[in-house]
Amino acid sequence: MEKFDQLKMFNTLLHGGDYNPDQWLDHPEVLKEDIELMKKAHINCVSLAIFAWAKLEPEENVYDFKWLKDIIDNLYANGIYTLLATPSGAMPAWLATKYPECLEVTEQGLRRYYGERHNFCHSSPVYQEKVKAIDEKLSQCFGKHPGVIAWHISNEFGGDDQDSQCHCELCQIAFRKWLKDKYQTLDNLNHAWWNNFWSHTITDWDQIHSPSMQGEHELHGLKLDWKRFTSYQKLQFAKMEIQAVKKYSDLPVTTNMMTFFKPLDYYQWGKEFDFVSWDSYPEWHLEEDELSVASRNACFHQLIRSIKKAPFLLMESTPSMVNWKPINTLKRPNMHELSSLQAIACGSNSVQYFQWRKGRGSSEKFHGAVVDHRNHDNTRVFNDVKKLGERLVNTSDQIIGTINKPEVCMIYDWDNRWALEDVQGLERGNINYDLLFNHYYRPLWDMGIDTDIVDMTYDLDDYKVVIAPFNYMYKPGYADKVRKFVKNGGIYITNCFSGEVDENDLCFMDHHPLSDVLGINTEEIDTVDVRYWPNEIEFDDHSFNVKNIRALIHTTTAKVLASYKQDFYQGYPALTVNEYGQGKAYFIASHNDLDFLSYLYQKILKQANITNHFDAKLTLGVTINTRKDQEKELFFVQNFNRNKAEIYLNSSYENIETKQILQHQVTLEPFECMILKKTK
Amino acid sequence: MEKFDQLKMFNTLLHGGDYNPDQWLDHPEVLKEDIELMKKAHINCVSLAIFAWAKLEPEENVYDFKWLKDIIDNLYANGIYTLLATPSGAMPAWLATKYPECLEVTEQGLRRYYGERHNFCHSSPVYQEKVKAIDEKLSQCFGKHPGVIAWHISNEFGGDDQDSQCHCELCQIAFRKWLKDKYQTLDNLNHAWWNNFWSHTITDWDQIHSPSMQGEHELHGLKLDWKRFTSYQKLQFAKMEIQAVKKYSDLPVTTNMMTFFKPLDYYQWGKEFDFVSWDSYPEWHLEEDELSVASRNACFHQLIRSIKKAPFLLMESTPSMVNWKPINTLKRPNMHELSSLQAIACGSNSVQYFQWRKGRGSSEKFHGAVVDHRNHDNTRVFNDVKKLGERLVNTSDQIIGTINKPEVCMIYDWDNRWALEDVQGLERGNINYDLLFNHYYRPLWDMGIDTDIVDMTYDLDDYKVVIAPFNYMYKPGYADKVRKFVKNGGIYITNCFSGEVDENDLCFMDHHPLSDVLGINTEEIDTVDVRYWPNEIEFDDHSFNVKNIRALIHTTTAKVLASYKQDFYQGYPALTVNEYGQGKAYFIASHNDLDFLSYLYQKILKQANITNHFDAKLTLGVTINTRKDQEKELFFVQNFNRNKAEIYLNSSYENIETKQILQHQVTLEPFECMILKKTK
Amino acid sequence: MEKFDQLKMFNTLLHGGDYNPDQWLDHPEVLKEDIELMKKAHINCVSLAIFAWAKLEPEENVYDFKWLKDIIDNLYANGIYTLLATPSGAMPAWLATKYPECLEVTEQGLRRYYGERHNFCHSSPVYQEKVKAIDEKLSQCFGKHPGVIAWHISNEFGGDDQDSQCHCELCQIAFRKWLKDKYQTLDNLNHAWWNNFWSHTITDWDQIHSPSMQGEHELHGLKLDWKRFTSYQKLQFAKMEIQAVKKYSDLPVTTNMMTFFKPLDYYQWGKEFDFVSWDSYPEWHLEEDELSVASRNACFHQLIRSIKKAPFLLMESTPSMVNWKPINTLKRPNMHELSSLQAIACGSNSVQYFQWRKGRGSSEKFHGAVVDHRNHDNTRVFNDVKKLGERLVNTSDQIIGTINKPEVCMIYDWDNRWALEDVQGLERGNINYDLLFNHYYRPLWDMGIDTDIVDMTYDLDDYKVVIAPFNYMYKPGYADKVRKFVKNGGIYITNCFSGEVDENDLCFMDHHPLSDVLGINTEEIDTVDVRYWPNEIEFDDHSFNVKNIRALIHTTTAKVLASYKQDFYQGYPALTVNEYGQGKAYFIASHNDLDFLSYLYQKILKQANITNHFDAKLTLGVTINTRKDQEKELFFVQNFNRNKAEIYLNSSYENIETKQILQHQVTLEPFECMILKKTK
Repeated sequence: MEKFDQLKMFNTLLHGGDYNPDQWLDHPEVLKEDIELMKKAHINCVSLAIFAWAKLEPEENVYDFKWLKDIIDNLYANGIYTLLATPSGAMPAWLATKYPECLEVTEQGLRRYYGERHNFCHSSPVYQEKVKAIDEKLSQCFGKHPGVIAWHISNEFGGDDQDSQCHCELCQIAFRKWLKDKYQTLDNLNHAWWNNFWSHTITDWDQIHSPSMQGEHELHGLKLDWKRFTSYQKLQFAKMEIQAVKKYSDLPVTTNMMTFFKPLDYYQWGKEFDFVSWDSYPEWHLEEDELSVASRNACFHQLIRSIKKAPFLLMESTPSMVNWKPINTLKRPNMHELSSLQAIACGSNSVQYFQWRKGRGSSEKFHGAVVDHRNHDNTRVFNDVKKLGERLVNTSDQIIGTINKPEVCMIYDWDNRWALEDVQGLERGNINYDLLFNHYYRPLWDMGIDTDIVDMTYDLDDYKVVIAPFNYMYKPGYADKVRKFVKNGGIYITNCFSGEVDENDLCFMDHHPLSDVLGINTEEIDTVDVRYWPNEIEFDDHSFNVKNIRALIHTTTAKVLASYKQDFYQGYPALTVNEYGQGKAYFIASHNDLDFLSYLYQKILKQANITNHFDAKLTLGVTINTRKDQEKELFFVQNFNRNKAEIYLNSSYENIETKQILQHQVTLEPFECMILKKTK
Repeated sequence: MEKFDQLKMFNTLLHGGDYNPDQWLDHPEVLKEDIELMKKAHINCVSLAIFAWAKLEPEENVYDFKWLKDIIDNLYANGIYTLLATPSGAMPAWLATKYPECLEVTEQGLRRYYGERHNFCHSSPVYQEKVKAIDEKLSQCFGKHPGVIAWHISNEFGGDDQDSQCHCELCQIAFRKWLKDKYQTLDNLNHAWWNNFWSHTITDWDQIHSPSMQGEHELHGLKLDWKRFTSYQKLQFAKMEIQAVKKYSDLPVTTNMMTFFKPLDYYQWGKEFDFVSWDSYPEWHLEEDELSVASRNACFHQLIRSIKKAPFLLMESTPSMVNWKPINTLKRPNMHELSSLQAIACGSNSVQYFQWRKGRGSSEKFHGAVVDHRNHDNTRVFNDVKKLGERLVNTSDQIIGTINKPEVCMIYDWDNRWALEDVQGLERGNINYDLLFNHYYRPLWDMGIDTDIVDMTYDLDDYKVVIAPFNYMYKPGYADKVRKFVKNGGIYITNCFSGEVDENDLCFMDHHPLSDVLGINTEEIDTVDVRYWPNEIEFDDHSFNVKNIRALIHTTTAKVLASYKQDFYQGYPALTVNEYGQGKAYFIASHNDLDFLSYLYQKILKQANITNHFDAKLTLGVTINTRKDQEKELFFVQNFNRNKAEIYLNSSYENIETKQILQHQVTLEPFECMILKKTK
Repeated sequence: MEKFDQLKMFNTLLHGGDYNPDQWLDHPEVLKEDIELMKKAHINCVSLAIFAWAKLEPEENVYDFKWLKDIIDNLYANGIYTLLATPSGAMPAWLATKYPECLEVTEQGLRRYYGERHNFCHSSPVYQEKVKAIDEKLSQCFGKHPGVIAWHISNEFGGDDQDSQCHCELCQIAFRKWLKDKYQTLDNLNHAWWNNFWSHTITDWDQIHSPSMQGEHELHGLKLDWKRFTSYQKLQFAKMEIQAVKKYSDLPVTTNMMTFFKPLDYYQWGKEFDFVSWDSYPEWHLEEDELSVASRNACFHQLIRSIKKAPFLLMESTPSMVNWKPINTLKRPNMHELSSLQAIACGSNSVQYFQWRKGRGSSEKFHGAVVDHRNHDNTRVFNDVKKLGERLVNTSDQIIGTINKPEVCMIYDWDNRWALEDVQGLERGNINYDLLFNHYYRPLWDMGIDTDIVDMTYDLDDYKVVIAPFNYMYKPGYADKVRKFVKNGGIYITNCFSGEVDENDLCFMDHHPLSDVLGINTEEIDTVDVRYWPNEIEFDDHSFNVKNIRALIHTTTAKVLASYKQDFYQGYPALTVNEYGQGKAYFIASHNDLDFLSYLYQKILKQANITNHFDAKLTLGVTINTRKDQEKELFFVQNFNRNKAEIYLNSSYENIETKQILQHQVTLEPFECMILKKTK
């Protein structure tokens, strides 16, 4: 295999999804129909064998790959490629019974019973050995099969439950070893965890135990390191699997990530895989409108793309509805196309589904699928999929090779999230980094400004504007990187409760680590019930409502742009800007409503001369993403409104699908997405 | 003893309740007063020894029945009969300490400590042996006592907690054996549970474990079979007890059931007992009015009667209030009579209380009782009871021998409930079969139409109309039974999310099992937040609001009676009817507000010429039940309004208690119940 | 040391707080700054070593007290006294690892892991021995140090979690022994717990197990005794510590109590300590106004003072905000002074903080402190503390030696609380004795009437009025004490659901234990949803709303003052008064809104000629507490309003701080507190 081209990955837009023929092997007529319907729906790629361990190794060391080979051969013969999964996401029953150490132990110290999926201890040598064995066998058997184009490692590492963790003795030992490698001495660890507090000094590594509601559950240093360790330990497991599948194969590897998934640091993870992919299940139709859901989903698409700054795969999505939400609403007409093309717009080179066909039984039998229990291809959903398939076929050549190239960047950081959400203070127990982050992202989406989203370890040199909301923790080197960025002309925007602690969650003493760049000193931070303590700030003769968090700061060299209008901090700075070197640094002291951020961002982006290049007046709910290559820019114009929307073009554009030339007023249907490029 | 006459059971209306002299043996003055007050209150029957094990067998194999014999003798001498209980509902402390295996194990695998009641493992051989021994001794001692009229087996099987279940190793073994008997082979089991999904294939029976949040908690097949098993296992225990008490006795046996109690399939249970009885604790006075509570209580009375299609006993009720609700409100004046006579109206041959006298201590000391801690017979409650007692004495002869004979039947099915409430889809985790079922029952209650309520295994031939709401599961043979019923002229009414799965919770493929009878094809099912997706249907020029669940269907031979007015399925069928053979089948695609069902039922019943035979115009909140024999119909006219109600008679009726002749306008006091029959 | 003078304790108002130099020993510049800033802020007393075990005994039997001695010496040299703590509140990690028996066992029977604080088994002989050893060593080393003025035993006994309890086998044994000592025979225990109910008869002491959701959790007698035992067992532990620190020292001892802390009977506890102290963290600024929070805090201040009827110490409070509430709001300007002086006003001889300086790490790093991570003494908070320090210095001489001397008393009783909140009945699970009690306390606070708050074992002779709301349990001798109190001219006020049970939670039979004194018979008690069952009572031509609880009573000799206006008990007595001997007894049958109690109390206090001696017309939110000695009365006039308040003086007063003479109209700033005395 030639070298994997990250930009042009797979050279065509993929369309397909999770396929479970292993549930239907005794129904050849179903398998036959599958191929026919896939071709009808323009499916060119399926994921196979994700939970097929029990079929692949029905008893210990007895492998049966024949059925899988037949399926892959047949798919390939019909022009359908395979993303081949390793089956580690769910162990077979015989393994759990024979080797109980493979099962997780709860934080109460109780061994789980067999069941569910994502149910294994990542530290278990037995489990590792068994997975390695089957992965290598799969590599040997399928690693050079022309129908197989990539490896799909396990499934949704970390599990359904965001807190799924193993506390067994093997994990304790591994955790202690990880700590020893990190801290070298107990003195270092005791200082980092501030263990003199509450007399928690550790005098022997064996005294350390994972956090548990049945033991320690407040020691921030321990909890933060445990989160780092569990992300690391699962990644070690994944790396073992990568090595196993690569034993006889050069195919690229990926694993399917999940939306704003707290337990895993996906920036760390991304490094170990050849390309990135994720499973997107936004909560359409459950709010008054789709805008915040659409923005949030776009935000994570952009984050995923930023991991490698390259195209990614949308690995799972539903063609219809899911079955695990409190309310499971059908996708309204056009929404399937729009939500699928949103992924493409943000850098995906695929639209893949969970699932191709609904199973007859068990817990996902009512989960949306391309093919239902009844009615074959004569369903609304099948036709939606087919229609989208046609659009992908028609646009693939123009899209492959393009990618988004933002000038704006936001800082999202898993360590920061882990530490921040664990803070005792503010609205304790109610600090949601994702909600806060998305609040600061939203105006960019409204404006159709593509944005990279990276963590504190990434380079900032490519960007004109960096936005770092609730950047509570500063990792080593981060402050200097920002200092240099601003000095060289960058615009940096941050806010209250930033720069509070170092990488060990120890408070910075004396002053904010960027006090010189920001030109301010921080003092207190107030959190209120806004019903009783409303406040506003005055900015450019506009008044904006303040939310529940308010920093009380003092300027040194900064200029005050806005001040509080009420309460005992009336007149205190609420927004400051500081000229530093060639650049500027903004500090938003008060956490404000969205209209403030919209106003501020528009002002700053205008000054910095940053636009989305799409020469039009948009309306609320219509957004733009832009993929480009050397020759062209493709504008994905997306209407997330439940009603028609009008936009007004100032230049002339071509619809790349219909070839129609658009000028002046254009009407988008509810949930319509158009792909335009400028006429030459 | 002559054969037990189910229709005339006990030949007189019983009045009494749970009596616990074992708490007062050292207070002979209390015991003496009990007899005096019972006679004053027209008590003719008490339940004895329900939780008296520690008094009956104070140490292992040492029995003391003397006190009980004295009590029963004395009651009998005073004209009061005894329903004699077996004491298995709560084990004595010595037993738990000596034989820990008798205590349940939680789903975490932890053995419970001694305490509470309903606290035993039904699989424990030791517990079974100990219960059998004491039951046989009770049978020997009291089985032919002239004062004892029936056996009351244990108490409220299944416990206070709807999830009370034992997960001990003995239960695991019993469960596996039950599965082996049912499925014969693991292939059958794996197919039924759809175990290829998530690689759950079982290759050894010993791999099977009960569902647990600490292990498998989503596998529908396993969970459904576990529910069936636990209902079965408890029933085996009850059958063992039945056999034990019948060893030396021919008396009929019963056990006290509970309202819409999920864990036990009471239709299966009913078969094993000579008559059915239940404990009714409706939540009077806690809502804006009493109507939905009254309707729900009537619904379960009707279900209980339908189990054997014979009179039943109201085994427990409170004369005043309970003490275990979030708010414990006193019964308002007249409500005690009304709620007691509601039971009689629906087929009960008794009004029994928990409890005769309040204990001094422990957890039910503030539970309503006929006799309070203070004031002897000089209380509002005692007088209410006494007054009711007089009414029972006066009407007993006329009521005994009558029974309700409905022409309408509804399908309520425990397997369906277990499967439906476990569905992942719709409003997952919020699917309440009882609420849904009662919604479809309510208009019948409003109209005063008596209704049988049976499960899918019962015969339908006796009925003109069968209503099967949310009949998600179709058991084997059910579809054919309905097909024949409609073919022969029956009217069948069903709705969205019916006919989805077979008895293993496996989806029916290709088409709805009654698609021919209903004349439709089903496609999708939408669940929405109605705040954002309101909808209405148009039916006979009326508009009705649609609730959160909406099926999208297509007609084949059916006629569309109503259509959706909004959303992308505007114009889709919302209500259809299909002529099939001599009958008709209605399909309600949209789950609608109550007024729709009222309108629809009235229309259908009118066409089918079904009435309650009571020739009057009722007002809302006044309902009718009808008990009849060869010669007469007794109409129980019940006003559940908090205010007076007027009804308008078109014929002339006699009040069977006052002998008054009623014509034209009649006024019912708040919560008044009159018993009328047509004048000759 | 001379005898500890409870009235003049410590001879000066203390100002200081928890000081943790053990977190900063490697930062001598920090320790140096501490002394400088303390002196600036008028700090004269710190609490030391509260959680310093790991520093004091870094490995088993190896003690290091040197650093502590240096700190104490240095503080003393700078005029700052030390309250020296024993470190038992949090064990070091080495101890937990070596002696797992020291760790608590949960109610599931699972041993906790090491972590948090208040994490030890109070029954463990090993833990007791280790604590005793270090306490005695501290006594020996510091017991006569001139800088140390008292012992601070452990910390907040009973832990953060109100349910923190150990269920280990050592505790089971201790519990059984405690029961054996109490009941002597199982017959006595079985009767007290009413164990014939549900067959719970105990036939061997070893059958007894602590209450647990995994076993018995409803048996009131068991639960009540377990609460008594756990309070007792912790107190035994505290007494062991008291003995240990007194081994080489005559210093007085205290321990820091917590607001309305359910698990410990502080009246019992108070007896064992030389003086009482507590940690006050009211929820300022989280409601629409501060009044209910201020009243509740005053209520507990008064309770704490009443324990010994002597001055107490405010041992902890925050100078700014806490970090563990759902919303952590900064103290508004003046609030720090007001809330601190509220403590003094109610009898405190100190204002102590948690904490002097914020730590850099772990769970309290964002908890309010005098000194922040940044800005040294240049903060709003530091200046607030300093300003208060000046006021304490200026007023100390006048305040020391004074104390509040109420004529009104309320009965608050821990046994009553434990039993009442466990009642099954009324609004089961929602009975909050503290909320109910504070409802009946609030009007006294509004009127500025100082009130003692004692339990049923205290003498009543000092008072003119005794108010006993929701006095459900009557301990032995209580009824007679009240009888004598009223006979001798006292005014007794009680209400519905009083006098229901004896000390074993067994219902009183036949009549209310004070039916003669109250002149009534009780019958039923109604609990309703007031939305559906509103009611009012008519009293002196005023109408007052009735809340959810309504007793139905009958008068014998009492006079009816108010009656119900609605429902079936319209016309029933709602408020009665009975002349008995020289006194009067009021019974409030209906639980009413606050305005009723205000009206009633004003009327009664006026008749009894009870005032606060402060000759002025107050406005809502301005309250008075009065400390006095032989020569003077000091009036603490406190404005808890967020706005200015006007009061109107009818006499002339001197502000003891400014020496200003005040007459007629006086304006208080928001949250201002003035200390006044009458001009001579």
